[in-house]
Amino acid sequence: MKISELAAESGVPLATVKFYLREGLLMPGQAVSRTQADYDQEHVARVKLVKTLSQQPGFSYQLIGRILDLVADEERPAPQRLGEAMAQLPPGPGTADDIPRARALAKELDLALDESSSCVSHLEAALAAPDDVGLPCSTERFQVYWRHIRDLAEFEVKGVAGESSAAASLQHAVVGTAIYEPVLLALRRLAHQQVYSGEL
Amino acid sequence: MKISELAAESGVPLATVKFYLREGLLMPGQAVSRTQADYDQEHVARVKLVKTLSQQPGFSYQLIGRILDLVADEERPAPQRLGEAMAQLPPGPGTADDIPRARALAKELDLALDESSSCVSHLEAALAAPDDVGLPCSTERFQVYWRHIRDLAEFEVKGVAGESSAAASLQHAVVGTAIYEPVLLALRRLAHQQVYSGEL
Repeated sequence: MKISELAAESGVPLATVKFYLREGLLMPGQAVSRTQADYDQEHVARVKLVKTLSQQPGFSYQLIGRILDLVADEERPAPQRLGEAMAQLPPGPGTADDIPRARALAKELDLALDESSSCVSHLEAALAAPDDVGLPCSTERFQVYWRHIRDLAEFEVKGVAGESSAAASLQHAVVGTAIYEPVLLALRRLAHQQVYSGEL
Repeated sequence: MKISELAAESGVPLATVKFYLREGLLMPGQAVSRTQADYDQEHVARVKLVKTLSQQPGFSYQLIGRILDLVADEERPAPQRLGEAMAQLPPGPGTADDIPRARALAKELDLALDESSSCVSHLEAALAAPDDVGLPCSTERFQVYWRHIRDLAEFEVKGVAGESSAAASLQHAVVGTAIYEPVLLALRRLAHQQVYSGEL
């Protein structure tokens, strides 16, 4: 299809599609003449992906490009690419100097912790707030959280394991992690309201 | 204790404590002279609470004041106060004109949905993104999410049910909902990385 059709089909203005092309967020089409190129469904999917991600809090175009490049770099092992792409997700690489809370909880749960992972420094930062307001994360709470979240993660990963290619599945892994966060938070608030209302 | 001791014990600069007082974020102490007041542990807890909340993304002082006022307004029924306070949590009141996705999923799950709740319009907005990137939320996924999140919510609510007073428990409900969100997201990313790395 022509670039104008690509714009129409993905529901994104033509100028925006051209911007994605210039910034390398969208792969070039197949050249059919000096001034025209041919685009396909993969291009439609990519335009929608970039547009949707750009509407999520914390996602700049620069960040989207960095994440998609990391995911697509087939020179390096997949787990490493995944870890690095995940580390880029907003709020970005963690900055904890030390991780005493995360380490203590992981030890109590006998959980192997990759201390270099940015998820671990996010966890450390996240655990400081409950402490500060006098609602500390008990071992029991951590256990219950981890059990549920780990089960959820296994279910979610099964869902992308059937992807057509390793690259698609890796991209879906990172995008799915990010894009379902607001869904889970909305459901949790809904559940809290329901459960509390029954108790109050 | 004196206001300077309050500042020292809560680890917040004196000028900030005075600011909290002026803005009504901190309740006045017990007057002991024309220029001095006496503060207690409840004040320490409040100062820490305001400070910690102000460090969470999306929490302005104005918003913190509004949430704490809503929670404390004992003239109105607790479930209503809870719902309104929850609706204020960032990203703030939802703005969905219609909620077709949330309604369809709730129907499939036979879930009672309070359509006026801001959580429902957040859910609707959150569900649009997975659709747009071609990773739509299947009924099965929604069921699995809801089962885990609902179980988690019941566990979390049990945790605050033992609070000393209804007001404290309501405040902890709202604060706990907000403050544990980053913990859950960090754990989910950690779990995703673990599970995917095993699969890749």
